[in-house]
Amino acid sequence: MAVADRTARTVWQGSLVEGQGELTLESSQVMVGMPVTWASRTEEPAGRTSPEELLAAAQASCYAMALSGALARNDTPPERLDVAATATFDRVGEGYGVAGMRLEVAGRVPGIDQAGFEEIARKAEQACPISNAIRGNVQIDLKAELEPS
Amino acid sequence: MAVADRTARTVWQGSLVEGQGELTLESSQVMVGMPVTWASRTEEPAGRTSPEELLAAAQASCYAMALSGALARNDTPPERLDVAATATFDRVGEGYGVAGMRLEVAGRVPGIDQAGFEEIARKAEQACPISNAIRGNVQIDLKAELEPS
Repeated sequence: MAVADRTARTVWQGSLVEGQGELTLESSQVMVGMPVTWASRTEEPAGRTSPEELLAAAQASCYAMALSGALARNDTPPERLDVAATATFDRVGEGYGVAGMRLEVAGRVPGIDQAGFEEIARKAEQACPISNAIRGNVQIDLKAELEPS
Repeated sequence: MAVADRTARTVWQGSLVEGQGELTLESSQVMVGMPVTWASRTEEPAGRTSPEELLAAAQASCYAMALSGALARNDTPPERLDVAATATFDRVGEGYGVAGMRLEVAGRVPGIDQAGFEEIARKAEQACPISNAIRGNVQIDLKAELEPS
């Protein structure tokens, strides 16, 4: 049996450009019936989420966990990690695609220096399940900065 | 310039198992400071989201848009599409990974039969940006069923 199955649902009505989806995070019920539209994806979010923002959210939360675990295994557990993930949606050939994922982490981590933090940040990126789900298809960039603790 | 950049952020405090992240969808502000934990990822969601649920949400919303567009280009626009995406989190080697993504779509689409719906559903999956972001790394399964309209 797998560790976990997690389900989300979108009910879409109408055309791509004029229609609207309602998104529900079914497993957690944290979001129920939130609107998603093509305009919120490609123009201004205007208080609506989008596939790329959700992918960025998956990446940011996954990487924060991966780095927390990697730092603890190095006997330098973090006090605080602040991870921002930005997914870039762009034209690819005749259609659209996720062109890039930029990860920026700032960490307050006692007992480590900038070089050591960067090294573990890179290792954690390699182990992160969401990074590995998009690797080779989406360019992943990582910037890691140690904050004074 | 890219079509769109979408950012999400996780601030993590404490260890992987006992700590907690706060997730914010920065571009849309739809979710601000929602808790994410390792337990909600690997055990019961208990009202908290997880990287895999967010990936499933990206996939469900993206695929609904891709299929809506593909059906319209076939001159058979849908009345309603109900897309569920389930991401499976599992042990992979020494670590963890996203092992599978199951897409299940039920469609109310006038003027098309089950075989035609399935064919367009498969084509839309091939064009879906989130599918293409995980393709080759995560096994994608698709089930498409036409509902009576």
